[in-house]
Amino acid sequence: MSLSSWVPGADASPYNASCLPYGVADGSVVVRIGDHVLFLDGVFGGGVFASASLNAFMASGPHEWRDARERIQRLLTDERFRGAAEPHLKPLSEVTLGMPFEVADYVDFYCSLEHASNLGRMFRPDEEPLKPNWRHLPVGYHGRSGTVVPSGTPVRRPSGQRGAGDFGPSRKLDIEVELGFVVGVPAEGPVRTSDFASHVFGVTLVNDWSARDIQAWEYVPLGPFLGKSFATSVSPWVVPLDALSAARVPGRGQDPAPLPYLERAEPWGLDLGFEVELNGEVVSRPPYAGMYWTPDQMLAHMTVNGATIRTGDLYASGTVSGEDAAQRGSFIELTWNGADPVKLSDGSVRAFLEDGDTVTITATGPGADGVPIALGEVSGTITPA
Amino acid sequence: MSLSSWVPGADASPYNASCLPYGVADGSVVVRIGDHVLFLDGVFGGGVFASASLNAFMASGPHEWRDARERIQRLLTDERFRGAAEPHLKPLSEVTLGMPFEVADYVDFYCSLEHASNLGRMFRPDEEPLKPNWRHLPVGYHGRSGTVVPSGTPVRRPSGQRGAGDFGPSRKLDIEVELGFVVGVPAEGPVRTSDFASHVFGVTLVNDWSARDIQAWEYVPLGPFLGKSFATSVSPWVVPLDALSAARVPGRGQDPAPLPYLERAEPWGLDLGFEVELNGEVVSRPPYAGMYWTPDQMLAHMTVNGATIRTGDLYASGTVSGEDAAQRGSFIELTWNGADPVKLSDGSVRAFLEDGDTVTITATGPGADGVPIALGEVSGTITPA
Repeated sequence: MSLSSWVPGADASPYNASCLPYGVADGSVVVRIGDHVLFLDGVFGGGVFASASLNAFMASGPHEWRDARERIQRLLTDERFRGAAEPHLKPLSEVTLGMPFEVADYVDFYCSLEHASNLGRMFRPDEEPLKPNWRHLPVGYHGRSGTVVPSGTPVRRPSGQRGAGDFGPSRKLDIEVELGFVVGVPAEGPVRTSDFASHVFGVTLVNDWSARDIQAWEYVPLGPFLGKSFATSVSPWVVPLDALSAARVPGRGQDPAPLPYLERAEPWGLDLGFEVELNGEVVSRPPYAGMYWTPDQMLAHMTVNGATIRTGDLYASGTVSGEDAAQRGSFIELTWNGADPVKLSDGSVRAFLEDGDTVTITATGPGADGVPIALGEVSGTITPA
Repeated sequence: MSLSSWVPGADASPYNASCLPYGVADGSVVVRIGDHVLFLDGVFGGGVFASASLNAFMASGPHEWRDARERIQRLLTDERFRGAAEPHLKPLSEVTLGMPFEVADYVDFYCSLEHASNLGRMFRPDEEPLKPNWRHLPVGYHGRSGTVVPSGTPVRRPSGQRGAGDFGPSRKLDIEVELGFVVGVPAEGPVRTSDFASHVFGVTLVNDWSARDIQAWEYVPLGPFLGKSFATSVSPWVVPLDALSAARVPGRGQDPAPLPYLERAEPWGLDLGFEVELNGEVVSRPPYAGMYWTPDQMLAHMTVNGATIRTGDLYASGTVSGEDAAQRGSFIELTWNGADPVKLSDGSVRAFLEDGDTVTITATGPGADGVPIALGEVSGTITPA
């Protein structure tokens, strides 16, 4: 069934009525339809939408998520509700988008076999690229919640130690193209893979900016720290899981078979395609469907030790990289640590990011009615150290 | 000058009038004096104290911190104020202590040369115990804010992967004796070592519970994750920096000399003594003064890349271990990974923690008037997986 909206231009947009991502505009919860936003506090009169973040709505649970989505779809597709809804509709160009949710804990995984193998080859050339644990568990670590920023926030080039006695601005400023999962409903202990959709509200695009020289020097033995903590950008849009029904595919085969707590109960592989633009030019198209570990497995792993989850927890997939060179989700992979720079159409080349560079990540997937939907956009421009 | 309090028993207590740590009791901000607590909302009538956490007070800044401390000291030491203050005083035994502050980001450092060397020898026996970066920067990583719990919270033995295909309850459940630093005043970018006391409000005792088998298997290459994230216990008391004036000592000598951004401007070594009790029996006495990296250096490092800090950020020193075997701040060190178990007076031995074990960490230091002060207490009992 195709959902046709009365909002001008919406049906031709990837933000059509089967997409409907949530965000915060002018300090209020909105849903995006085409190039407009609908203010939900206005149409529904308070409750969880009378807020400057999605957290209260996300905490309300799957029944309320589905109910709200159905009501919003009715409002935006049935001409009879146009009169009631239209006063709460504004063009996107007239609002200011903010951080869509308050981040509780931020965890970054490392779920692409291709990315982990590529990084292993570069960071530890004398060893097997994958550590012995990699195929047994989704490797992850905690990042800095306080520096998760919304798309559009300028990213200042970080300074730090690039080696022994060598301090200065990073010379290897990079991106990481990731898909983020946003927790709505808290849990006190282990969450089974089968309960993924009872706790996770939706997805958001993530650019986990990385200073490779700082990271390479600092990361042993306790992991990345300042090479990552200066900024992590997220899309202003959180796409609810219900919008991704048509994108769901079985996860990639796993060998060895995962331990029982990591066994998949439902298909939570996602057939989404990313696109990375550097200064307006596409430099990579990472595919999400080939990720080794799926998000239900990440959540089960993250909580199997009894760790609680809270509304606003953000966990990201790790860099999405495909098998082809043109599908890599970071410059360190695209340029093989600078050895093979990316050539741009104006004749310039890039090993890593330069001041003034703008990186924009988008993603699309199949919508419920066969029409492609957009998953948002995360963009940032590098400012000097 | 000795500060004598009219509160019964306070002068003979390490929680005397030159200590005065802050906490939250029965959902309200209090200060501890002897075996009593004073409800600050009651005596000062609202403002930053009308809250269930210290965050608003901590955000108010050094001038307000000092002003409040002076007013509280006057109230508790001048008999003329007894009538006004006494109605807001309650015995500690009649209140319930809670989490003293809301944790924003939690960072764990690794600042003891002895601890890092001991762990290196055990985890990587074929290599140099210290990684090449260790003497150049305070190594640290982000922990899980959502599982920082107040003293007294039972700690359930975590389950997880102990190796390839090996899942079950941790067999190597351990403690880490640490000092935590609590940020009051936010900052947008790098904080110099000289500005430490303008941002950090005080200290709290931390037990960073650790499952060594889970940690050893998971921690490469991105650092500890589930081996730590199940629980981190903190004392109910935050001791303001002003209470530690007499404990301040020059930091340990450093070779090589630290880079300029890590140069110390003031003495922020702290001459504090920890005591670790297992089921009521002292098993270790780690000294804080010998820590290699000082907290002003940790803060400068954590922010040098432009990372912001927020009110409620908690960063901990890493395990405090001294040179002597009886000064080690973890069981993995005290028992050399179980090879040399701790012998208890009842004839039992411990390699790692057993279900039902209670660990209590306390610390003391010199108060402003020469009388010892207590830094709080953090305690937890292990419950079965």
